[in-house]
Amino acid sequence: MNYTPSTSTQSALTPLHQPSRRTIRLIMEYDGSGFDGWQIQAHGRTVQGETARALESLFQEPITPISSGRTDAGTHALGQVVHFHTHSLYPTQRIQRALNGILPSDIAIHQVTEAPSDFHARYSALSKRYRYRICTIKSAIERHHVWSFYHCLDLHVLMAATRFLPGNHNFSAFCKQDPLPASFTCHIIDASWARQGDELVFEIEANRFLRHMVRILVGTLSEIGRGRQNPDYLAYLLRGRPRLDAGPTAPAQGLCLLWVNY
Amino acid sequence: MNYTPSTSTQSALTPLHQPSRRTIRLIMEYDGSGFDGWQIQAHGRTVQGETARALESLFQEPITPISSGRTDAGTHALGQVVHFHTHSLYPTQRIQRALNGILPSDIAIHQVTEAPSDFHARYSALSKRYRYRICTIKSAIERHHVWSFYHCLDLHVLMAATRFLPGNHNFSAFCKQDPLPASFTCHIIDASWARQGDELVFEIEANRFLRHMVRILVGTLSEIGRGRQNPDYLAYLLRGRPRLDAGPTAPAQGLCLLWVNY
Repeated sequence: MNYTPSTSTQSALTPLHQPSRRTIRLIMEYDGSGFDGWQIQAHGRTVQGETARALESLFQEPITPISSGRTDAGTHALGQVVHFHTHSLYPTQRIQRALNGILPSDIAIHQVTEAPSDFHARYSALSKRYRYRICTIKSAIERHHVWSFYHCLDLHVLMAATRFLPGNHNFSAFCKQDPLPASFTCHIIDASWARQGDELVFEIEANRFLRHMVRILVGTLSEIGRGRQNPDYLAYLLRGRPRLDAGPTAPAQGLCLLWVNY
Repeated sequence: MNYTPSTSTQSALTPLHQPSRRTIRLIMEYDGSGFDGWQIQAHGRTVQGETARALESLFQEPITPISSGRTDAGTHALGQVVHFHTHSLYPTQRIQRALNGILPSDIAIHQVTEAPSDFHARYSALSKRYRYRICTIKSAIERHHVWSFYHCLDLHVLMAATRFLPGNHNFSAFCKQDPLPASFTCHIIDASWARQGDELVFEIEANRFLRHMVRILVGTLSEIGRGRQNPDYLAYLLRGRPRLDAGPTAPAQGLCLLWVNY
């Protein structure tokens, strides 16, 4: 029997055809502009709150969607992964269609699949990949999706500093300190810069990310790219320096969670 | 002397160093989502209204910016061309920087140049190019920039119908009839479809466009692409058929003015 302890009492009272609890996995896109981040709050519109409301309205049972990680207010996702549990028998394709109809226009569900009962969107994740877009001119259409940065950035200097990132490092300089994480160590799998038209695009993949980590990295790299620090300064910071030694936190709207790897 | 008749009276009363009236050309981008179209109105936020206000605040004289053509409410522009006249001596680079500072974040000025005194953004235009984006899945981030169209569209059928477009045709079927234009004849220079990820992207270049022309073309092509009409039906409509024979008007937000050729 697949019943988990929390539902075993209930199952004794329900008909024999009561299904096992299913674990459903969603891949979702959202435009962070209109949200106070992922995590549900007493006040404010959140992605988790809107998703929970849509799921509860569809399944008529209390549901808590769990994501691979919180995103900040204003930060976007193209491939956020979310799991939740349900006793319903709806086929996954019907769940996707129904959710896309119920959810507001700034959240879209791209995939709904059955997951193993022990799948956890956050704890099962092996790595995640983020993108950060800097636009070097004023952009009207992309204004909620880029950091408009009018100072001259040297792409080769950015690339030189970014070469220090792959591997295991202590990211204490690149972490919002409240609350303190259990560990500052992250393994960077890949980090790179590319020029795309008037944009400089940073992509980074790691086994885990600390709070504000990508935004502080980009803020620090922007100081290096405009010549205020040498590329070597990044290597120094990666040896567990305090937050105050690093650069500013780049704005949330340039950041987008691309995908999660399991 | 470069004075136009309308300023010659004034010039007699002004000092000898009063400069000739300059014609300035702007290339501008705007996100149409927050505007009631280009043209200034008694009520409502318009691109022309915001631009006129910024120019008048900068130059401290009444200024009417003229564009290559009106765009509908919700329609975007990456390369709209605008001209205006001024007696100021500000260098063009300074005008661009100042305007980008004064204008709201959904309008960006990408180029400011001196133009010949007889340059007219609308009447001097040789051709314009528009893009229309159809997204075949729900898109959260691009929702204000695509038509979300969930019916299956056959790209090869769309391409077959689009082959009838190049050349001179009577576009009476593809024109909002109020007010009636002087002529329904347009010369299509190029028209094509491409698949880009989950999007089908239509681009069209012509010497002129009638009101709602691209949107009615896309609406009609969508009927053909989903099999409700044969590709030949487009050729029939291009022989001056009435508006009612064509398909629906596709939503404004999928449309973007790419550039204007002089």
